[in-house]
Amino acid sequence: MKANVTKKTLNEGLGLLERVIPNRSSNPLLTALKVEASEGGLTLSGTNLEIDLSCFVPAEVQQPENFVVPAHLFAQIVRNLGGELVELELAGQELSVRSGGSDFKLQTGDIGAYPPLSFPAQADVSLEGGELARAFSSVRYAASNEAFQAVFRGIKLEHHGESARVVASDGYRVAIRDFPASGDGKNLIIPARSVDELIRVLKDGEARFTYGDGMLTVTTDRVKMNLKLLDGDFPDYERVIPKEIKLQVTLPATALKEAVNRVAVLADKNANNRVEFLVSEGTLRLAAEGDYGRAQDTLSVTQGGTEQAMSLAFNARHVLDALGPIDGDAELLFSGSTSPAIFRAVGGGSGYMAVMVTLRV
Amino acid sequence: MKANVTKKTLNEGLGLLERVIPNRSSNPLLTALKVEASEGGLTLSGTNLEIDLSCFVPAEVQQPENFVVPAHLFAQIVRNLGGELVELELAGQELSVRSGGSDFKLQTGDIGAYPPLSFPAQADVSLEGGELARAFSSVRYAASNEAFQAVFRGIKLEHHGESARVVASDGYRVAIRDFPASGDGKNLIIPARSVDELIRVLKDGEARFTYGDGMLTVTTDRVKMNLKLLDGDFPDYERVIPKEIKLQVTLPATALKEAVNRVAVLADKNANNRVEFLVSEGTLRLAAEGDYGRAQDTLSVTQGGTEQAMSLAFNARHVLDALGPIDGDAELLFSGSTSPAIFRAVGGGSGYMAVMVTLRV
Repeated sequence: MKANVTKKTLNEGLGLLERVIPNRSSNPLLTALKVEASEGGLTLSGTNLEIDLSCFVPAEVQQPENFVVPAHLFAQIVRNLGGELVELELAGQELSVRSGGSDFKLQTGDIGAYPPLSFPAQADVSLEGGELARAFSSVRYAASNEAFQAVFRGIKLEHHGESARVVASDGYRVAIRDFPASGDGKNLIIPARSVDELIRVLKDGEARFTYGDGMLTVTTDRVKMNLKLLDGDFPDYERVIPKEIKLQVTLPATALKEAVNRVAVLADKNANNRVEFLVSEGTLRLAAEGDYGRAQDTLSVTQGGTEQAMSLAFNARHVLDALGPIDGDAELLFSGSTSPAIFRAVGGGSGYMAVMVTLRV
Repeated sequence: MKANVTKKTLNEGLGLLERVIPNRSSNPLLTALKVEASEGGLTLSGTNLEIDLSCFVPAEVQQPENFVVPAHLFAQIVRNLGGELVELELAGQELSVRSGGSDFKLQTGDIGAYPPLSFPAQADVSLEGGELARAFSSVRYAASNEAFQAVFRGIKLEHHGESARVVASDGYRVAIRDFPASGDGKNLIIPARSVDELIRVLKDGEARFTYGDGMLTVTTDRVKMNLKLLDGDFPDYERVIPKEIKLQVTLPATALKEAVNRVAVLADKNANNRVEFLVSEGTLRLAAEGDYGRAQDTLSVTQGGTEQAMSLAFNARHVLDALGPIDGDAELLFSGSTSPAIFRAVGGGSGYMAVMVTLRV
């Protein structure tokens, strides 16, 4: 096998695989990268048993052959190469990597022992990759990394007809984003950590979905990805979204983020980083208190709704997370001091909404 | 006490103090910042018992009073403030910090219990601050962070007459930088960790030295710093500098750094990251070998000296460190396969020199 490939494209492909393939594993086979050479290029693939990823890299190939190499070492070598063109040559068990004045000889592994990875060819539905990535990115923060219940470590994707929705929750808050779609898909729950990798891989363009048994395959122009799905029922989050809004406040999202950041310095870490929100007469007053003193910040807001004043308390950390995906003006919708609140972009235009429980007064 | 101060200057001062004052300590007094208000401004000071630091911040002050506050909390509050002007007001045990729409009330500490910090006023000699900082930065890497012998965790400053020198060593390599000076100072050893803070504080302009008992005070236009010195004899490093150069090689420092970085990927971490240097016929060949394969890189060099060829081995990590302060062309001076080598900028112009032992063949 002999292949000529540009450093840039090989590097990009290896960068994606490097994130999925573990650097160390009790099963050393898993740390390997599988390279399948064909006439038009090299198919790089790897797995961490949660995600299988495969990426095609165009190359000039002679005498196609397949092999496995230590993934991270190979990626690091390619990244550091000085030349723009990389020459690969397989001779027996040894892979030569040549570029500029550099010549590396790498031991290859036992390709027979490497687990077979297969990616279905036909697609069931498709979504726009960029939209999907943006939607996942907006709600990712609300999924838990540690929750005891597995579904709280996942992100739900609902896809029926003209619109799709992603939802994440850790039991204290819900983040939702709707986005346009077509076709009729299924509801499924993807582990949040796998979503992180999916976000990195998706670009503008078609993301084709194939539904398997406890498995979703996502195919784009350059990559194929098998994702293990989470079993179980996602909580009935619709129930938490307040229907009757009694007070509504609009202000620039950045000003609110900065003010919450400020007062949070004194908020009590052992009391959920509690920050009070006090709305009245066109102002929002934030207050926090802890062992070392107390903080207060006053912001001008546009106020609406049937109630003239309200006092609520939130976890400052959760407020900052909820505001993260909101640009321009934020709209805070309050249904009462002890019932959940909605944070969204003014008018809800972007399809994003954060629902948060209030802390006890 | 009432003070008006710009956020920017207060922030800069607190940034320096924050690095010295510990965030946590078994003695909570040490986590405090001392503020001495006078008519022209605020003197901020703190200590970690190795370094005392004091920094003057111009401010409009009424009814001067002194107080202590939790240093890191106060710095964090000031950093997050929205306004450009900060208003401080001390009322009883409470310090108000106001800016824009923000109002913080901070509990102050017991100023009587805070250890007295004093900085001598007269200076013995002075050095150019920028030169000194650059010199320290060039050799810092060679000081050890863990060595058993304390002197290897320090940087020696020699200052007599027309030139000064800083030297650092961990027993395997020596880094030296000479720079112009005037006046007659003393030889002393400063802990490398204190040098790190000194580098941050020094700017172009005069750095005035006052010699104390086991202590050096450095005074610049904006800060005063007491540094505890290291006792003991610095090793006789001059003995290690090779006098008879048998082969000399010149090449762009960047090309050598990149090539060493490349081959080091395959170097054996358990064998000192060994990289071979083979010089002959106007080329430098680098080679490394480890569990996963072997690497080779060939560079064109300008060669001089009495010997035509030489083969040596170095720790790749040490080579990269030694090349760090070298821009443009590097000059490698070899005295033999098993005796120390010198790496420096071509002609030694910058006053910097790295001396390294070779690894056994």
